[in-house]
Amino acid sequence: MNIALIGCGGVGKSFIKLLQEKEQYLINQGVDISLKYVIGSKGGVYNPQEIDKKDLLDFMASEKDITKYSKGGVNKLSIDDIIDNKDVDMLIELTPTNKETGEPGMTHITKALDNGISVVTGNKGPIMLAYKRLKAIAKANSAQLAIGCTTGGALPSINAGIMDLAGSRILSIEGVLNGTTNFIIQEMETKGIDYKEALRTAQSLGIAEADPSLDVEGWDTAMKMLILVNVLMEEDKTLKDVKVSGITGITQQDIRKAAADGKKLKLIGKAVKNEEGLDMHVLLEEISPDHPLYGVDGKNKGVRYISDDLGELTITGGASGTRAAAASILRDVINIYKGYRFV
Amino acid sequence: MNIALIGCGGVGKSFIKLLQEKEQYLINQGVDISLKYVIGSKGGVYNPQEIDKKDLLDFMASEKDITKYSKGGVNKLSIDDIIDNKDVDMLIELTPTNKETGEPGMTHITKALDNGISVVTGNKGPIMLAYKRLKAIAKANSAQLAIGCTTGGALPSINAGIMDLAGSRILSIEGVLNGTTNFIIQEMETKGIDYKEALRTAQSLGIAEADPSLDVEGWDTAMKMLILVNVLMEEDKTLKDVKVSGITGITQQDIRKAAADGKKLKLIGKAVKNEEGLDMHVLLEEISPDHPLYGVDGKNKGVRYISDDLGELTITGGASGTRAAAASILRDVINIYKGYRFV
Repeated sequence: MNIALIGCGGVGKSFIKLLQEKEQYLINQGVDISLKYVIGSKGGVYNPQEIDKKDLLDFMASEKDITKYSKGGVNKLSIDDIIDNKDVDMLIELTPTNKETGEPGMTHITKALDNGISVVTGNKGPIMLAYKRLKAIAKANSAQLAIGCTTGGALPSINAGIMDLAGSRILSIEGVLNGTTNFIIQEMETKGIDYKEALRTAQSLGIAEADPSLDVEGWDTAMKMLILVNVLMEEDKTLKDVKVSGITGITQQDIRKAAADGKKLKLIGKAVKNEEGLDMHVLLEEISPDHPLYGVDGKNKGVRYISDDLGELTITGGASGTRAAAASILRDVINIYKGYRFV
Repeated sequence: MNIALIGCGGVGKSFIKLLQEKEQYLINQGVDISLKYVIGSKGGVYNPQEIDKKDLLDFMASEKDITKYSKGGVNKLSIDDIIDNKDVDMLIELTPTNKETGEPGMTHITKALDNGISVVTGNKGPIMLAYKRLKAIAKANSAQLAIGCTTGGALPSINAGIMDLAGSRILSIEGVLNGTTNFIIQEMETKGIDYKEALRTAQSLGIAEADPSLDVEGWDTAMKMLILVNVLMEEDKTLKDVKVSGITGITQQDIRKAAADGKKLKLIGKAVKNEEGLDMHVLLEEISPDHPLYGVDGKNKGVRYISDDLGELTITGGASGTRAAAASILRDVINIYKGYRFV
């Protein structure tokens, strides 16, 4: 399978490294992948045979501008070149998330699918804004669209909903899907510190961003829930349909009150089908020890599905960091390689 | 897809019912299944067009001998008829488990795969005894072999190992895989009764069999672990490679000692890769509250994988009973229908 990578940040680099390190293992599994394009913001690298991954990684270790790479560096290399050259089967789209427009990912994914090129992406923007439309384009062009990395990285939340519950209707989804807020809450629980101090710790460790609002105000969880609901319950909801609140108001008193009842606070995303339709919210909730997400602490994530015939399924774990996110991209690539039709 | 069903006990009947009830839902999902054969121990029913599932179920509600069914009942209908008629793509094999010979399932599965007919089975015997050989036959004949129901029914333990951890090496497997022993232990914990009384309760509820030895002596867990190891770690082990012990010696003193330390007793199957190779055992262990399988109580099941790049993954839940087992068969059918190559 010939692939192109667009988006060369931490996850993109880790993905190239993973392909290089696991090359023999993948070949033994019957999975043969050739990387032909690596495209960043200024342009990229193109080798119509195959990019030497180790050589490119060595080059990138000391030079940020990949267009200077002597064995295939090209200024302004773009999605249009991939389309024109007609020499890849799959695009890995890893540009940053834009939750208003989905760009530039939206254009990349649309153009690829329109031309029968399958897409694996970790970019929440286009998937949250236009999954239904993108799926229809994929279907019409016999291409695949896999999005496992958008909803919890290494945690196989999409896989579990599609493959592990195949043939069953999902009646409710409940998740601890944001590692940053979960870490902050755990810091407050274990160290008795207040929210601001726990947030500063998370920021100093690189777990929370300088502007943490997407995480702590609940929007990251809301976006992931929206994707899960639209993909797994075949809905066509938007962010406006989710009642969102975050953890910014959490106090030591809240923590202690929950602990006194043997409970823990978690930022929970929930979507439940009921007679009026679908109720979706993101809310700080007290969770009892008998709840299957009670043990999801720190940077861990978890999701619980209730289905009609296969019953309840809770999945927890998933490594965090760029390598784990890259491994979740590779998982989707392999599952498509093994023939699975996600759309 | 045209299918044949061999093995018409509780799970087989539930499978026909599930196909009938979910027919429209499956068609909406793009999944079109025609049932042509239903074969029990004396013979079966054959309709070269398609069996009327509702009509057959109504007949079976009052008559055990399906060969008497007027619309296609045939004495001594067998796997050989399916092979000769060349009119199905898939065999659902649900005859009872025989852990010494694997028969009659071994013959059914071998003949089907040899003739390019894909197989979905819940029969542990042939899979435990000959997975590697059966997989090779499937590959050589471009057929599929899916076995999700053999290791925990509705709990997607095989799926999680194959699809959710695709591209990662599994380093260890740990599971609470036997609902009967888990139920007996919970009865002892919550009611303070001894082992024999808890076993009798389980037997009176139909959770434990009259001869409970396969469950309570650890062999059911050992068989499931063996399948997980051979399929997911690409090993070729036999039951002799598993150190097996059960729960028959458990006392109230053991339960109270664990509880005093805040722990619970569970019958755990474990397989860990280490420098000497693979260590496999089934053992009653004290589990701490911070262990992800701590909350797997009663009839629930759970399995925890540790992988190289996708980290830890724990899955728990899965409904029990014949309908859930049938739904796990349907899951494999759909995933093959969606193109997935399990072998």
